[in-house]
Amino acid sequence: MDVPEGVAVTFEEVSAASFRIREGINRTPCDRSHMSALTGMEIFFKKEYQQFTGSFKERGARNTFMLLTQEQRRAGVIAASAGNHALSLAYHGRDLNVPVTVIMPLTAPLMKVSLCRHYEANVIQRGNDFGEAKAYAMAMSEEKGLQYINGYDDVPILAGQGTMGLEIIEQVPDLDAIVIPVGGGGLLAGTALAIKSLKPHVQVISVESDKCPSWQAAMDAGHPVATPVGPTLADGLAVPTVGYNAFKTAQKLVDKHIVISEDKIALAILRLIEMEKAVVEGAGATALAALLGGDLDELKGKKVVVPLCGGNIDTTVLGRCLERGLAADGRLIKFVVRVDDRPNGVAELTRIIGGLGVSIKDIFHERAWVRSDIFNVDIKCVCETRDFAHSNELRLALEKSYPNRVDWSSQIHT
Amino acid sequence: MDVPEGVAVTFEEVSAASFRIREGINRTPCDRSHMSALTGMEIFFKKEYQQFTGSFKERGARNTFMLLTQEQRRAGVIAASAGNHALSLAYHGRDLNVPVTVIMPLTAPLMKVSLCRHYEANVIQRGNDFGEAKAYAMAMSEEKGLQYINGYDDVPILAGQGTMGLEIIEQVPDLDAIVIPVGGGGLLAGTALAIKSLKPHVQVISVESDKCPSWQAAMDAGHPVATPVGPTLADGLAVPTVGYNAFKTAQKLVDKHIVISEDKIALAILRLIEMEKAVVEGAGATALAALLGGDLDELKGKKVVVPLCGGNIDTTVLGRCLERGLAADGRLIKFVVRVDDRPNGVAELTRIIGGLGVSIKDIFHERAWVRSDIFNVDIKCVCETRDFAHSNELRLALEKSYPNRVDWSSQIHT
Repeated sequence: MDVPEGVAVTFEEVSAASFRIREGINRTPCDRSHMSALTGMEIFFKKEYQQFTGSFKERGARNTFMLLTQEQRRAGVIAASAGNHALSLAYHGRDLNVPVTVIMPLTAPLMKVSLCRHYEANVIQRGNDFGEAKAYAMAMSEEKGLQYINGYDDVPILAGQGTMGLEIIEQVPDLDAIVIPVGGGGLLAGTALAIKSLKPHVQVISVESDKCPSWQAAMDAGHPVATPVGPTLADGLAVPTVGYNAFKTAQKLVDKHIVISEDKIALAILRLIEMEKAVVEGAGATALAALLGGDLDELKGKKVVVPLCGGNIDTTVLGRCLERGLAADGRLIKFVVRVDDRPNGVAELTRIIGGLGVSIKDIFHERAWVRSDIFNVDIKCVCETRDFAHSNELRLALEKSYPNRVDWSSQIHT
Repeated sequence: MDVPEGVAVTFEEVSAASFRIREGINRTPCDRSHMSALTGMEIFFKKEYQQFTGSFKERGARNTFMLLTQEQRRAGVIAASAGNHALSLAYHGRDLNVPVTVIMPLTAPLMKVSLCRHYEANVIQRGNDFGEAKAYAMAMSEEKGLQYINGYDDVPILAGQGTMGLEIIEQVPDLDAIVIPVGGGGLLAGTALAIKSLKPHVQVISVESDKCPSWQAAMDAGHPVATPVGPTLADGLAVPTVGYNAFKTAQKLVDKHIVISEDKIALAILRLIEMEKAVVEGAGATALAALLGGDLDELKGKKVVVPLCGGNIDTTVLGRCLERGLAADGRLIKFVVRVDDRPNGVAELTRIIGGLGVSIKDIFHERAWVRSDIFNVDIKCVCETRDFAHSNELRLALEKSYPNRVDWSSQIHT
């Protein structure tokens, strides 16, 4: 198969984008984080989830609109996206008076579909996944003469995303490293170029989930290749083939690439909620997940910038992340105890649990009439503890009071 | 019973506090919100949940420490609190080298207890509720010669909280109204004084939950009175008797007081998560709940400032709020359908649901062997829809396909 040779974006294009999009894009804060103590690094969060539609994607979208000819503006643009790219185009298209058509797969989150319509985009739901939506969008682009906008590989998109890197250098001039999540590679390419052009010694590290290691596959092959995509919390990164231009641009600028295990992402989302009061989606939390998960311990003592690049997490998914994160943190523990079926059997159990300072979140008789005999009753508990050590204290106490009568096998799976 | 006559805080005391605490307290942003379109008002959020320990309480705590004598500083301070007051004292006490003892009730959230210890406070867990913890703290204050700090009624506390009002006037000089949650009354008193002193025409509105209407009770009686407290999402506002000094200060400054129904708070928390990517606790979301709930429609078209005064929500509580908020929003719907027990019975059901663009979140056989006969099976579904209208579409479609076989009675109760 012929592999297209990509085109690298230039520092001049990124610089020009910075002035072009200044009106209409938030200069988001880049604040020192509470998590510095937790990680032993000086961590700064670039808060791109505070863009109006909740992600960095607006930078590239706005730059693209500004570069259209009058004729292209009149005709309008089309794109396929399940999420942030669609929102960015819809919002800035309305602002700049360019008609926007977005093809969203049938599986796209309902809230994002509603919002795109709210921003007056022509939303068409078609295809069971991104690939099918994209094929439809490309065909419609030809047929109707609409400019097709690739959300992670068009050069104006890469240049726009790079403006985040320019801002970071103004905000944290003496950074040592930046850790960037990679999906299609647009943010990585633009940002790596901006940063390496001005501060060549800054380490650029890219991170992706092991459910979609398409950047790793591209590095191994020397060019973008199709990679199987599994279900991932970082759905914004689930791009099967990274961008040709993005790869061409970033290939020689990335000092290190890391593939992290999926389970670290939920915990990073939880930490951001609890410690930063920030709602960040899986893709946006992936770089932090690498830091918290011990994948980058060589950065200890260093000044590290982490873009929190998007906040559009499905609310039901967020709910599950919180629960899964608490469980991974050892703070949510689930078990079944077989207690005597006498009046104070349950009272005795709750006394033991409460006495340890453990908080009971849920307690109920677990299908008592099916599993237990007539002298015993199965009590199912969900408890919250301070940490792993506290959970272990609870385990020991219950094993002592109820020898061979506690079942710990049903941990939290959501 | 003798009612103590309170002392009103002065504008001079608030102004002095502003300079005294400038170092050590964040000047939080006061940004125009996305919710302006939703409410028909121009809403600005004062983001006090972005203080280091997650609440406005730091202002009063820091001012109090700065006003202690050398002797008092050496001896240290004591307070009773289940939450934000304790965190504020612990954090600023460490920063200013003042020993801090906090008496936290046994029911205090574990995370807050851990954090106070992390900030090196001497944490003692005692008492089943705030009242018992307070009695213990007052006794220990006498016995050990520690200055007792009342978190919502000491004059230096009120003066500190008032600095938020001064900042708001700098940030949104032409505001028409401010809507402030009230618990003990400290934030309300300080802020109302600051704002009315500089801009007498600005409307000051206070809001509390109907689970703890202690400010309303004080207004009715003409002085603070004990009020029963029910379980509330706005636990930070659950103060049975408002402060004497706070009431004396604010009584004549508040233009309107509103008691809102509890169920509006969960929805406000959800809106803040989804639209602002902000994690705000129940107390902090109470003022917004009044605006979203239609209690203040006379403010339409006006410029309204809403302090989001704290972000320390228990993670398990947050999870439940999200679910309850989605349900209140008509976007999470739960039902049981009795379908034919043939191979494609379930497939047919999911086809109907999917065809409407409704997303199935959970689906399972509901204790089939107990409730159904042998020709039918009960399928329990949790579905996510765009809104109430979309939910109704689903209802109609299912009633048509499964007449008298759908049970809608089990809505989300968490």
